[in-house]
Amino acid sequence: MAQIDPAVRRARSAVRGVLAGLPAGSLVLVACSGGADSLALAAALAYEAPRAGRSVRARAHGVRAGAVVVDHGLQEGSDDVAARAAEQCRGLGLDPVVVRRTAPTERMGVTGGRVPGGPGPEAAARTARYGVLEQVTAETGAEVVLLGHTLDDQAEQVLLGLARGAGARSLAGIPAERGRYRRPFLGLRRTDTEAVCAASGLDHWVDPTNLVPGPGRAGDPGDVGAAPLRSQVRGIVMPVLEDVLGPGVAEALARSASQLRDDADALDALAADLLAEARVRDVGESPPDGTGGALGAGDVVVLDVTVLASVPAAVRRRALRLAAHEVTAAPTTARHVEALDALVVAWGGQGPAHLPGGARVERACGRLFLRRERA
Amino acid sequence: MAQIDPAVRRARSAVRGVLAGLPAGSLVLVACSGGADSLALAAALAYEAPRAGRSVRARAHGVRAGAVVVDHGLQEGSDDVAARAAEQCRGLGLDPVVVRRTAPTERMGVTGGRVPGGPGPEAAARTARYGVLEQVTAETGAEVVLLGHTLDDQAEQVLLGLARGAGARSLAGIPAERGRYRRPFLGLRRTDTEAVCAASGLDHWVDPTNLVPGPGRAGDPGDVGAAPLRSQVRGIVMPVLEDVLGPGVAEALARSASQLRDDADALDALAADLLAEARVRDVGESPPDGTGGALGAGDVVVLDVTVLASVPAAVRRRALRLAAHEVTAAPTTARHVEALDALVVAWGGQGPAHLPGGARVERACGRLFLRRERA
Repeated sequence: MAQIDPAVRRARSAVRGVLAGLPAGSLVLVACSGGADSLALAAALAYEAPRAGRSVRARAHGVRAGAVVVDHGLQEGSDDVAARAAEQCRGLGLDPVVVRRTAPTERMGVTGGRVPGGPGPEAAARTARYGVLEQVTAETGAEVVLLGHTLDDQAEQVLLGLARGAGARSLAGIPAERGRYRRPFLGLRRTDTEAVCAASGLDHWVDPTNLVPGPGRAGDPGDVGAAPLRSQVRGIVMPVLEDVLGPGVAEALARSASQLRDDADALDALAADLLAEARVRDVGESPPDGTGGALGAGDVVVLDVTVLASVPAAVRRRALRLAAHEVTAAPTTARHVEALDALVVAWGGQGPAHLPGGARVERACGRLFLRRERA
Repeated sequence: MAQIDPAVRRARSAVRGVLAGLPAGSLVLVACSGGADSLALAAALAYEAPRAGRSVRARAHGVRAGAVVVDHGLQEGSDDVAARAAEQCRGLGLDPVVVRRTAPTERMGVTGGRVPGGPGPEAAARTARYGVLEQVTAETGAEVVLLGHTLDDQAEQVLLGLARGAGARSLAGIPAERGRYRRPFLGLRRTDTEAVCAASGLDHWVDPTNLVPGPGRAGDPGDVGAAPLRSQVRGIVMPVLEDVLGPGVAEALARSASQLRDDADALDALAADLLAEARVRDVGESPPDGTGGALGAGDVVVLDVTVLASVPAAVRRRALRLAAHEVTAAPTTARHVEALDALVVAWGGQGPAHLPGGARVERACGRLFLRRERA
């Protein structure tokens, strides 16, 4: 038996893990850009799919494997890149292989730069991409969609989250599983996926916007500024971090992300439990505005202060944020949550705390009353 | 009234916060290196001390303010730096001002480089410094010791923690309060402390090992490698992060640290509760080694698997780590905790998990038995 490349072995093993337990005959799609990550994923899926799929007699009867290629139409020749990716997916035996170009309106946000208050071009491209994936999933009845994000993407995501400074959730990076989406390669390096392509004779595309000059080579800072933020993190920040802190930085960042994700999941679950426990369903007395029982559901949320005060701050603050989201659709900041928390743990008779969208929160009779602003 | 520099105002306000509530006449020491951070802290303390101190009639009757200057004796002229720092502290009116040189044996770990398996030179210097502070605190009867760490130190600490990949606790950075130690400047930038020194006519010392060439100026990577890791993070990594991610990165890192500290506190408390709940005090049947009730306290810890399995992973893993520490003094890694967790949630009849120091853990009859290795 021929020696199998270690990167190929790792890639297949990772895909085998996510296929385990799928019913025989179900369809698995890989989202393929033609880059090394997603082409390597397509190759591993093509190899593992016939070997997966639990039948009634617990034997593998195979799952079906297909691909979706999204063409954002943002660069000249992007249709050629998409066609070449699709051709290689078909060559691997994937079927169906669907190529979709995002609609011009979807591209507007991408090509038009950042609209004030709107999403940036990277977010717009992501939204358009997931829109296409949702659509093709619905059309084909796929069970699972595989995405090619690697450990390097995860490390970059943690660094991008750092700049927001929004706690465990923003540092938790990219989830391995969300809905139908799975990311089997979060434990593999980008170099692994390049090795898989080389070993499999696949010709992967290299996105020129990712070729950011390193800090030592940057002739003109203006050039660097033009590259997407993620590319700058990849091309400038990560190499400097590896130089200074050692070559294991990407793995360490990914490990941190995984632990912080577990933490955030635990604290979110505990906060939801706390909110349910603190909620006063039968408001025995009128809320402070005197509207009594005339308020419709969702107009006022009433919480027991003693229950809230009995738990650690990290759980209580998350529960207060959840409660705030019930009375306002606008995003709440750490400062809003801080003001709500002060009503619970630093009560000195202060007036109401104000939430965005005109909602407000006051304390009376050992209870918090969160009220939606009515038009 | 003369205009007060905003940095001076922030520094004084921060120190006022930590002095609030101290009894009149108590002694507060500042640990002073002669650098901008700790000299600015000395100046703010000198100003606030006479205005603090709660007397029986709730009037300020002053606290006493002193300083400790630690000379590590690591660089030529370090005694001059220490003498100059002490002189300036006395000039500010601090009393007592104690100068201590760390013992040659303490310096060995610092000057001798990293001993295999031993602490690095930075850790050795820190240990020696805290040893001196503890000693002087005991001798003078000080209530509180102030340390000059700033928001920049906090941001650097988070980055160093991220690079280790060691979870929320190590990302939680430096605490504002621990025992007698207080860090009032964690919300101030290093530039604020330099502004305080300038406004107060103080002549601060600049540690030459902190003057690391930036990435664009590094002529010889070997020079960079010689600087302490923290200085490289300060001089190389932070500027690159601020270039790429924006100037708010340090504040964002510090904000994350504060939130992650709350998270870690909450999860640690919940894990301790879970461990108490899962502990089987009356072992109704013999542990798997057949020693029955003959085991002494601490030789075996018995936990109920159903209780452990009922909570989120982040809480359960912390509880398992706490339990492991009851049967082994050696440090446990994430991999050890993973093996214990698998006995709880991925049980397939596997054999015992081994802990460092010869301890082992096995599952039987719906219980985990953690056994200390006996000599």
